Amino acid sequence: MTHFRDLADLRDLCRALPDGDDHASAAARARQTSLTKPPGSLGRLEELAVWLARWQRRAIPSLGSVEILVFAGNHGVVARGVSAYPAEVTAQMVANFAAGGAAINQLAATVGAKLRVVALDLAVPTCDMTEAPALNEADFLAAVETGFASIAAGTDLLALGEMGIGNTTAAAALTAALFGGGGRRWVGRGTGVDEAGLLRKQAAIDAALSRHAPLLHDPLLAAMALGGRELAAILGAVLAARLQSTPVLLDGFVCTAAAAPLRRIETRALEHARIAHRSAEAGHTALTVALGQEPILDLAMRLGEASGAAVAIGILRAAVACHAGMATFAEAGVHDRA
Amino acid sequence: MTHFRDLADLRDLCRALPDGDDHASAAARARQTSLTKPPGSLGRLEELAVWLARWQRRAIPSLGSVEILVFAGNHGVVARGVSAYPAEVTAQMVANFAAGGAAINQLAATVGAKLRVVALDLAVPTCDMTEAPALNEADFLAAVETGFASIAAGTDLLALGEMGIGNTTAAAALTAALFGGGGRRWVGRGTGVDEAGLLRKQAAIDAALSRHAPLLHDPLLAAMALGGRELAAILGAVLAARLQSTPVLLDGFVCTAAAAPLRRIETRALEHARIAHRSAEAGHTALTVALGQEPILDLAMRLGEASGAAVAIGILRAAVACHAGMATFAEAGVHDRA
Repeated sequence: MTHFRDLADLRDLCRALPDGDDHASAAARARQTSLTKPPGSLGRLEELAVWLARWQRRAIPSLGSVEILVFAGNHGVVARGVSAYPAEVTAQMVANFAAGGAAINQLAATVGAKLRVVALDLAVPTCDMTEAPALNEADFLAAVETGFASIAAGTDLLALGEMGIGNTTAAAALTAALFGGGGRRWVGRGTGVDEAGLLRKQAAIDAALSRHAPLLHDPLLAAMALGGRELAAILGAVLAARLQSTPVLLDGFVCTAAAAPLRRIETRALEHARIAHRSAEAGHTALTVALGQEPILDLAMRLGEASGAAVAIGILRAAVACHAGMATFAEAGVHDRA
Repeated sequence: MTHFRDLADLRDLCRALPDGDDHASAAARARQTSLTKPPGSLGRLEELAVWLARWQRRAIPSLGSVEILVFAGNHGVVARGVSAYPAEVTAQMVANFAAGGAAINQLAATVGAKLRVVALDLAVPTCDMTEAPALNEADFLAAVETGFASIAAGTDLLALGEMGIGNTTAAAALTAALFGGGGRRWVGRGTGVDEAGLLRKQAAIDAALSRHAPLLHDPLLAAMALGGRELAAILGAVLAARLQSTPVLLDGFVCTAAAAPLRRIETRALEHARIAHRSAEAGHTALTVALGQEPILDLAMRLGEASGAAVAIGILRAAVACHAGMATFAEAGVHDRA
């Protein structure tokens, strides 16, 4: 059993999203003003505590159960010479995740989060998007469904990320389709292609945009034609999190791009999600501007794997710890404003 | 027994600072390139791991023992109406720290750091700097000594912060003396003064700069005339940390200003220290530029108490976890560059 029969059904679901709890956020905001600090002096930590309250639907949010989900997929467009690493590295890194040797393993442990890695048909890359749609409708919906079904009930916070050699090419093509500007605006060095590789990458993106032009008015068809399985799964996970009112941290360029079609279908669609960090990948800043968000961190990271989202979990833990644990002026006997 | 007999002795100490260990940082840099990620893709986390290695003098740094030190002091200039809160709040907040109710208590617990609060003669505010030097030489040296002596041996990382109603006025006067520009360039709202308070604050700073002009060519005399006990203690702690090669995180505007005289005496003096976050206090960005540092975080915080430094400890834990725990390409059997 899947949650959506076809693209039209998925599109309908994307247009009927529940809102956050304004009573909970108002109560959280009121609590912030009572705590022993000058009003507003915890800056972004206050804003994040209120945001978590709104989506967890309680005045004092909790981060008891934090999960990091990393989706992995392979990309036919790698045949175009768009990556500094060969396609086998996707599966090798999934094995590295399982063995505990990757950055995300260390980061998940540091911030007290569970890590789950979901590999999507690594032996079957998407089609080369310069020659055909990356996925057909059935495969696209199956990947969205995998992401949608992967969120455990009772998760307080979900951090999303990806692994997939070639997927910054897919993400750049998708963001170009959604926000305009062509390959040149969105292309970046990914894992580190050289100048010639960058030009091949830009050419592949522009070829794909040209080939699939008739589909690109529709954000879901664009995701199908230009994206990939791990991007589709992220879209499904973001959607499922919204339906169960779980706040979401999005990692860098690929992860943010994967969620962006939802925002093109419905303006409020990513209010339960925050961009965890500003990636050093070239297109990410333009994408954060297009989505109207200021990332929480800016550490010049560009690894993927949910690594930036994992680091941002620590910032949310700081926000919740202050919000939940600080004494009020009355409790502490501290004199409020002069 | 104190570590310096007089100001001249302290000045000599500031000019004879040991360097970091370049072999350790080179080894750390080499290790980073062997780990299972594209080179440079962890961005600032890589740079911070190498910095910690240099000052901990080992290729793989550790954060087993992390201490947060908060120094508190009172300021005679509060009589000029420069703060939104009355002077009693300094002692009340110190009591709140002891009771575990302040932001820094929650943050210290979140990042696994010990918290120590050192109150410096709260019943004896500094002199009003518009009328006399804030401290005389003996009191200034005693406060520097308190900070100098307060670092436990074997500390892997020291995070510094302060509490003191009125101390953004002292900090702004000190930075104006060290880097020029007068009160207007450095004054900010501190805990939240209104427009009239801001003008009183600027006037107090300019009056103090004018009164003490003959002293201000000397960074230590400037700190004595315009600073405060908690600022002097921070200076002493930063100096002691350098002598025992302990890396330091500096909190926001007041804490950075307190350390700045060292940088005016010796250009390399703050290489073992990092500005943890960009404070929302008006003068902080100009101060980070004057010191040639890019803060690790920018969360629009402006609380003091080492709160921003505490949050940044989490970033350093992420950096060290990746540096120490990740598999190399060889260990993981992951294919390196194409």
